[in-house]
Amino acid sequence: MADATTDPQLRSWVEVGAEHPFPIQNLPFGVFSRFSEGGATTPRPGVAIGDLVLDLNLLETMGFFDGPQLRGAKVFSQSTLNAFMAMGRPAWREARKTISELLAANEPRLRDDASLRERALVPMSDARMHLPCEIPDYTDFYSSREHATNVGTMFRGADNALMPNWLHLPVGYHGRSSSIVPSGTEIRRPCGQTKADDAEAPSYGPSRLLDYELEMGFLVGPGTELGEPIPIQRAEEHIFGLVLCNDWSARDIQKWEYVPLGPFNAKNFATTISPWVITLEALEPFRTQGPPQQDPRPLPYLQHDAPAAYDLTLTADLVPESGEGVRCTTTNFKYMYWSMVQQLAHHTVTGCNVRPGDMMASGTISGAKKEERGCLLELTWRGQEPIELPNGEQRKFIQDGDEIRMTGHAQGPGYRIGFGPCDGKILPATPLDDASAR
Amino acid sequence: MADATTDPQLRSWVEVGAEHPFPIQNLPFGVFSRFSEGGATTPRPGVAIGDLVLDLNLLETMGFFDGPQLRGAKVFSQSTLNAFMAMGRPAWREARKTISELLAANEPRLRDDASLRERALVPMSDARMHLPCEIPDYTDFYSSREHATNVGTMFRGADNALMPNWLHLPVGYHGRSSSIVPSGTEIRRPCGQTKADDAEAPSYGPSRLLDYELEMGFLVGPGTELGEPIPIQRAEEHIFGLVLCNDWSARDIQKWEYVPLGPFNAKNFATTISPWVITLEALEPFRTQGPPQQDPRPLPYLQHDAPAAYDLTLTADLVPESGEGVRCTTTNFKYMYWSMVQQLAHHTVTGCNVRPGDMMASGTISGAKKEERGCLLELTWRGQEPIELPNGEQRKFIQDGDEIRMTGHAQGPGYRIGFGPCDGKILPATPLDDASAR
Repeated sequence: MADATTDPQLRSWVEVGAEHPFPIQNLPFGVFSRFSEGGATTPRPGVAIGDLVLDLNLLETMGFFDGPQLRGAKVFSQSTLNAFMAMGRPAWREARKTISELLAANEPRLRDDASLRERALVPMSDARMHLPCEIPDYTDFYSSREHATNVGTMFRGADNALMPNWLHLPVGYHGRSSSIVPSGTEIRRPCGQTKADDAEAPSYGPSRLLDYELEMGFLVGPGTELGEPIPIQRAEEHIFGLVLCNDWSARDIQKWEYVPLGPFNAKNFATTISPWVITLEALEPFRTQGPPQQDPRPLPYLQHDAPAAYDLTLTADLVPESGEGVRCTTTNFKYMYWSMVQQLAHHTVTGCNVRPGDMMASGTISGAKKEERGCLLELTWRGQEPIELPNGEQRKFIQDGDEIRMTGHAQGPGYRIGFGPCDGKILPATPLDDASAR
Repeated sequence: MADATTDPQLRSWVEVGAEHPFPIQNLPFGVFSRFSEGGATTPRPGVAIGDLVLDLNLLETMGFFDGPQLRGAKVFSQSTLNAFMAMGRPAWREARKTISELLAANEPRLRDDASLRERALVPMSDARMHLPCEIPDYTDFYSSREHATNVGTMFRGADNALMPNWLHLPVGYHGRSSSIVPSGTEIRRPCGQTKADDAEAPSYGPSRLLDYELEMGFLVGPGTELGEPIPIQRAEEHIFGLVLCNDWSARDIQKWEYVPLGPFNAKNFATTISPWVITLEALEPFRTQGPPQQDPRPLPYLQHDAPAAYDLTLTADLVPESGEGVRCTTTNFKYMYWSMVQQLAHHTVTGCNVRPGDMMASGTISGAKKEERGCLLELTWRGQEPIELPNGEQRKFIQDGDEIRMTGHAQGPGYRIGFGPCDGKILPATPLDDASAR
């Protein structure tokens, strides 16, 4: 439930504009180091406030986290958020309350201590963002009905678009966690095996149908033991927060490889996430109903009463190396057919255990309108309807040098809960002969 | 290539019978703690020799590993083998040589020092085995032609048994790493969603078609950077060693969920591995040709000249709670159509990075004969031809209380390179209402 930290009237002594992603109502958690200190050294937890990053490691060392949950826990003296995430909601709320109070307009402890401020607040421009946590396992769902219908139509024809199981369970598959990278990491175009419809045999080379997928990912908080399903009524306790997620996809590799065991090389080369984790606490005011009553009604283990969708506007832009970008997708997380709690309950119904930091992504988020489609495959309908760029160029899929920039936000009265950037630029492929020679 | 440590004439002062899995030619690495010290405390690396475990942590502390690779590296003062695995073949060879020399019949340093022997050699019966390493990512291939053909025939009919891509690339998918457990861990029968062919709607309940899959897994040594494919000629440098692997599978859940994104809940509840890692060094004398020349010839990035299969006899027994067991499967790892180096080259051809400890499993290993089929689905042909137990019972699939025991070994002249146990017993399901109530 919403609490004082989400009050729309709340203001910080750190100046934050009405459309800025990181007002005092947000307080997202991330892990940063300082470019000015060499960049790679001493990653540590922080919270974003306006254009600054609050150094939680320093605050912890100084004893600011002295509530019953966090006193002595030393969870911010680590280079990832996993230990903090493992503690669960009471600890998350306590940390959030402490930070919110410290940054509130009327609170002088940090505001009026120039020396402490200097040390505790780092300019965002000096913050190199890392992954917020180790991600032990990554699962990707396929929970947008519009996306599944569109892709199914293209890959299998309209008659087989939505498989018989799709309306009964949140279809998902295991992804590759090693290649999850934070926003800003350049992505090399993958090489692989593809086969044109009219070719006799497959061939090796750079993917020619490189795509983005606009998704949301949630990060698991407290883990579970093997054999211990998470009942849907308790699933939210295991969700720490959300990140934007670009599940890069090589459509030509995918088409050739994916039957019968699903996408593999088509997606294992990179997944980009936004490095700031937006907590469920910050998103509480934006909880909303998902799509109309699910029909057929899911089995009891997938039923929940409370609204479990979130009203988050999401966008994806394609920006060519030279010239102006174009907004490709404008969609909303609330369109998802299957909710995060349904995904988590289904994932663990077998007794599959989860660990702090596990990421579960939504699958491409598409809406009913054309501009709401969350990937180029759908937007250009497999290349048949190219996207026009301001400079007169066209795009069916992503070209070398193109950057994909994603954003997301919830709109409150006079403030926004934003996700910050989820960007990635595509570098040219280095086919294997060259790579071997390096 | 084979070296002095694999000499069939080599004998240890530790007595090891001719059919024992752990002679001096083997020297598998694992991680153990001592039941007599509380079991869960201080897991540390060890090497199996006969019915004893050599404590590598102690030897390292005492300075036995003083070669150029390992001096000061402290890789055996950790609770997993990841750091050692990351070092690569020169370090692995140096450690193996040191250990082999120390255990050789004519070497007195440890043999004649009763006090040191007492501390450095732990009875296997007192060793609680843990996972040998953290497994950051788990990939499961599908590389037995006989298995893929059998399963494809059952799931999709004989005409669609082997998909068009199967002979061109090692089909694989990402698995769940959180639920990989060492031999001896009891496995709870998973619950989930299934749909009978003649049912109108799916239902929730315990899986009724629980199966084992007899596989081999290899563990990755040195990792790679994102965007850096592993050329097939260098793939072996990244393979530390092999373990037995039981990829438990709920066939009824699998059938309902697997189209279009592959198996998910059907396999995410548990994967059992043998805790001793058999190194490629120990297996070098058993390198052999795989199946006859691959036809069609794979693309160049998947071609290798040297034999890349290994002659390993593998078995799986089903042992009911009361009564004698039955040998279900007797097969051989050399039957695999796609080799480990092909799997690794294909996995990374996109630039997907690997990390030390990643596990890549073969997929079910079946041969041409009926008794060589590596899972019950194939052996009983989906339950149509039940297996007879000595006590008169029949099995179509695994029942509660049944234990599956796997073994593997390479047969040398007068010695065996064995894998040790890969066992798991099935506990009754706890459907969700009960689980929630706990």
